[in-house]
Amino acid sequence: MTIGFIGLGNMGTPMAQNLIKAGYHLQVYNRTIAKADELEQASITKCNTPAEAAANVQFVVSMLSEDEILKEAVSGENGLLHTFPKGGVHISMSTISPETSQLLSGLHEQAGSHYIAAPVFGRPEAAAAKKLFVCTSGAALHKAAAQPILEALGQSVTDFGEDAGAANVLKIAGNFMIIASLELMAEAFTLAEKNGLDRVAVANFFGSTLFNAPIYQNYGKLIANKQYQPVGFKARLGLKDARLAIKLSQTSHTPMPLAMLAHNRLLTAVAKGGGDNDWVEAFGKGVTDDAGI
Amino acid sequence: MTIGFIGLGNMGTPMAQNLIKAGYHLQVYNRTIAKADELEQASITKCNTPAEAAANVQFVVSMLSEDEILKEAVSGENGLLHTFPKGGVHISMSTISPETSQLLSGLHEQAGSHYIAAPVFGRPEAAAAKKLFVCTSGAALHKAAAQPILEALGQSVTDFGEDAGAANVLKIAGNFMIIASLELMAEAFTLAEKNGLDRVAVANFFGSTLFNAPIYQNYGKLIANKQYQPVGFKARLGLKDARLAIKLSQTSHTPMPLAMLAHNRLLTAVAKGGGDNDWVEAFGKGVTDDAGI
Amino acid sequence: MTIGFIGLGNMGTPMAQNLIKAGYHLQVYNRTIAKADELEQASITKCNTPAEAAANVQFVVSMLSEDEILKEAVSGENGLLHTFPKGGVHISMSTISPETSQLLSGLHEQAGSHYIAAPVFGRPEAAAAKKLFVCTSGAALHKAAAQPILEALGQSVTDFGEDAGAANVLKIAGNFMIIASLELMAEAFTLAEKNGLDRVAVANFFGSTLFNAPIYQNYGKLIANKQYQPVGFKARLGLKDARLAIKLSQTSHTPMPLAMLAHNRLLTAVAKGGGDNDWVEAFGKGVTDDAGI
Amino acid sequence: MTIGFIGLGNMGTPMAQNLIKAGYHLQVYNRTIAKADELEQASITKCNTPAEAAANVQFVVSMLSEDEILKEAVSGENGLLHTFPKGGVHISMSTISPETSQLLSGLHEQAGSHYIAAPVFGRPEAAAAKKLFVCTSGAALHKAAAQPILEALGQSVTDFGEDAGAANVLKIAGNFMIIASLELMAEAFTLAEKNGLDRVAVANFFGSTLFNAPIYQNYGKLIANKQYQPVGFKARLGLKDARLAIKLSQTSHTPMPLAMLAHNRLLTAVAKGGGDNDWVEAFGKGVTDDAGI
Repeated sequence: MTIGFIGLGNMGTPMAQNLIKAGYHLQVYNRTIAKADELEQASITKCNTPAEAAANVQFVVSMLSEDEILKEAVSGENGLLHTFPKGGVHISMSTISPETSQLLSGLHEQAGSHYIAAPVFGRPEAAAAKKLFVCTSGAALHKAAAQPILEALGQSVTDFGEDAGAANVLKIAGNFMIIASLELMAEAFTLAEKNGLDRVAVANFFGSTLFNAPIYQNYGKLIANKQYQPVGFKARLGLKDARLAIKLSQTSHTPMPLAMLAHNRLLTAVAKGGGDNDWVEAFGKGVTDDAGI
Repeated sequence: MTIGFIGLGNMGTPMAQNLIKAGYHLQVYNRTIAKADELEQASITKCNTPAEAAANVQFVVSMLSEDEILKEAVSGENGLLHTFPKGGVHISMSTISPETSQLLSGLHEQAGSHYIAAPVFGRPEAAAAKKLFVCTSGAALHKAAAQPILEALGQSVTDFGEDAGAANVLKIAGNFMIIASLELMAEAFTLAEKNGLDRVAVANFFGSTLFNAPIYQNYGKLIANKQYQPVGFKARLGLKDARLAIKLSQTSHTPMPLAMLAHNRLLTAVAKGGGDNDWVEAFGKGVTDDAGI
Repeated sequence: MTIGFIGLGNMGTPMAQNLIKAGYHLQVYNRTIAKADELEQASITKCNTPAEAAANVQFVVSMLSEDEILKEAVSGENGLLHTFPKGGVHISMSTISPETSQLLSGLHEQAGSHYIAAPVFGRPEAAAAKKLFVCTSGAALHKAAAQPILEALGQSVTDFGEDAGAANVLKIAGNFMIIASLELMAEAFTLAEKNGLDRVAVANFFGSTLFNAPIYQNYGKLIANKQYQPVGFKARLGLKDARLAIKLSQTSHTPMPLAMLAHNRLLTAVAKGGGDNDWVEAFGKGVTDDAGI
Repeated sequence: MTIGFIGLGNMGTPMAQNLIKAGYHLQVYNRTIAKADELEQASITKCNTPAEAAANVQFVVSMLSEDEILKEAVSGENGLLHTFPKGGVHISMSTISPETSQLLSGLHEQAGSHYIAAPVFGRPEAAAAKKLFVCTSGAALHKAAAQPILEALGQSVTDFGEDAGAANVLKIAGNFMIIASLELMAEAFTLAEKNGLDRVAVANFFGSTLFNAPIYQNYGKLIANKQYQPVGFKARLGLKDARLAIKLSQTSHTPMPLAMLAHNRLLTAVAKGGGDNDWVEAFGKGVTDDAGI
């Protein structure tokens, strides 16, 4: 079965690889198509535009870095809506605003095709290991059709209802929970260090007792060790996600002081020139710097 | 073996019960001694003062609600230092400042006895189930001597070094991590709700994936369901703990904006008359109220 | 001399009246044109579109409530650019983002006309009394041409340079300074009240000594007296201005924790249903509510 | 007339000079008595203890740096209560907590003497120029008796009632208002700068219009010019004052998020080693550093 695949970034590439492993042939599009050289060549067809990638397929998967780029790939001059067959299902996996999903869902319906949101949690390693957590929203029928593709990409698929944007809300809330946890750990470990404790011992204790969850174990280790290399996720992308949370807070009238605080930590890191550093550094170093360590 | 036990509050009572189960006879002191009626009478001797409770024993366990009350129980008119035998070890399990532990440690040494800090994580149910996490600090020799008693009280004992106050720092850092997590969940779930999602589904998703740790699972359920009864831990006690974190932040020159934010959520709840309500309500209802829900 | 005038809101109406007093004839446009009945009829020509208002005049003054509405009035279907004579100068007095001013400036230049930003400080009473503080930016030549009109509207005209958006930045910074001052006073007076002082006496003292400036004297009186009627400026409009500050903070990479805090106070008021109440109430009542008064 | 004078710091010295100019003879005490060499020698008697300074006088003025030092000077081993004549009035001008004033007022009454609080606003230059704003609280009779002395020290005396601590509350609230204003200006001017405006022009505009008050004019100039030398008031002393505000916020159950924010700015400066720098730098440089300037 051939499907379209748009976006070969840090996340998209391992996801495309898993789809190939699962037996799919991919019509791939990426702004810099050289990225496709990393994929099994026999299993892909390189495309020059999103429209080419969406031609004659029943599914398109997209994984792009922001709302505007996705909108362009859908309804721009060379957007997929120009070619996507009637009845096709666009599986939109980018981290975007629910507003964009709702808008795009409408555009697809007008064109006779369909759109579901399916953002994921997990870093590139998790994508490669098929360990992503996939969250979905959109029409039940189309989610059911997409299920095999989603199962080839992650360890679980959790649904959040029929509103096209619902899974995007969930993803934005989750990203907020992660960055807030980074701030939380950075403050706690630095308090401990400044009072004479070993911050690694502190991280180990909490990561194996009250906070024995991946976010606290994995990021806790990095923050405790002040280990900000290699860069897993750039601060400037973290800031983009934080801005999505702030925007959602504003449009839905949900005051979120902690989201503001975490947002500002990332904004400070970017303002100081650390936009290409790991987002964990924005919190870890941000807090230790302020504490004079 | 007979040991002294001071403080029969929500935590102290189940802890005393576990010591009795482990075979210890207790000389118990509590401000309102009627609380001792809940204990197996054959296994206790009721005392009128901390000094009585500490007479002729090698160990005293204390579990009191705040620094000043503990100081009074140690060095006040009827304090335990008047009677505690030379070489005795005071196992101080209250949530107090490291400064108080350091002060009391010195007073014990002057009197020829010893002091170790052994604060715990866990609510009264955990205390009853012997599921507490015990954290220790103080002289190695005395911690070793106290080990069997501590093992009778919790599921693990983790050491943080020789400085008498170290375990108190850890405990304060941990309490901060908990209240910050309450704020974090309250904001995330409310954002989701105001954007049309089911907050219980959101809590379930995160509690079974990225945040599958007790703090997020147990408190997450309460916050998602807006269930603030029965009262497990009063907001005014939570505020006391938050104040310990603020104080430590100040004395150690560790700026902690998130601690300030969480502190203010509790302060607001207390100011509005909710000091005797559950601390989870301070966050859960605090955030939904501000969001107009 | 005839000039175009677009926007007869709380601010626009008294401004139009002052222009009439200064001898100008106005081609007025307002979405609900009935508002024009408040003006001296002999001195106005009612128009059905912005394009009509801008026909055959050398100057157009606009005073609208937000960026999108202004953009529509300029370049929409019936926008002024369709008729505005070459060489004309659009004096844009709304509170908008600098980005919008820069965009509109470019559109005017393309069309052969010109654009200057001239936002103002002052409430409707100040507008009526010709006591506005006008801030300008744009090309020197066009600002010079507009000077007599601006002098008919305010007590001073201060220039901030050639970048079309500069005065908008200044205006947004000033609005931030005002809302931050409201928070500041609300906290200070409430602290005083909860410690037994008379908040009016406190406001009087500071308003006549260290803080003897209009913002602290006028708003200070309202906050001290908890007097939130009549509504001078709606919380929802204040929130719009706060959002402009947040946006500018984001785009220019300027972390502004105090702006976030003040923004959230307004967002909370709007979320709770107080969007049509005075913005001072958002701060005054927001703080006393949290303090349990 | 001879009066006691305790505390020859940056503020105390010019105040003592004004009392001498007004014709008073002073029995002065200072921890390092060499500071008394700056005073007119014919008009003073150097004392070795607070008790000596308070012997045989009807009034004692004290101006010390913190609560504990004042308490020691009153009721310590060589405290003034040992010698202060019955009926004497202690004019306590330090920036201290209301709690301390209430405590000391009680001790004086027990000893047969009296205590009024009379903290001041103004920097050393203002003290030298007799331009301080004096705020009083305490028993009316004793305030009346002290009036001539207070008038020799400042440009106005404003009363806040009979509760001994009331003027201290006012002083703490005022200091909070000042530091919050520093944060406010630092954020506003930096936002302007990062968007291309001249921050000095911005400060000048606001300082001569909406914010034409001394706090905004004088500190505004320093912040706009990033001029943090010479040191007028040390960040570590500003932090002490901010801590008094936080403490009062806690004890009176008044949530003050802005006070927390301003406190943390000072705490950050001190943590980074800037405790002896000017407090304006903590805000001015704190904000520009975070903005990457």
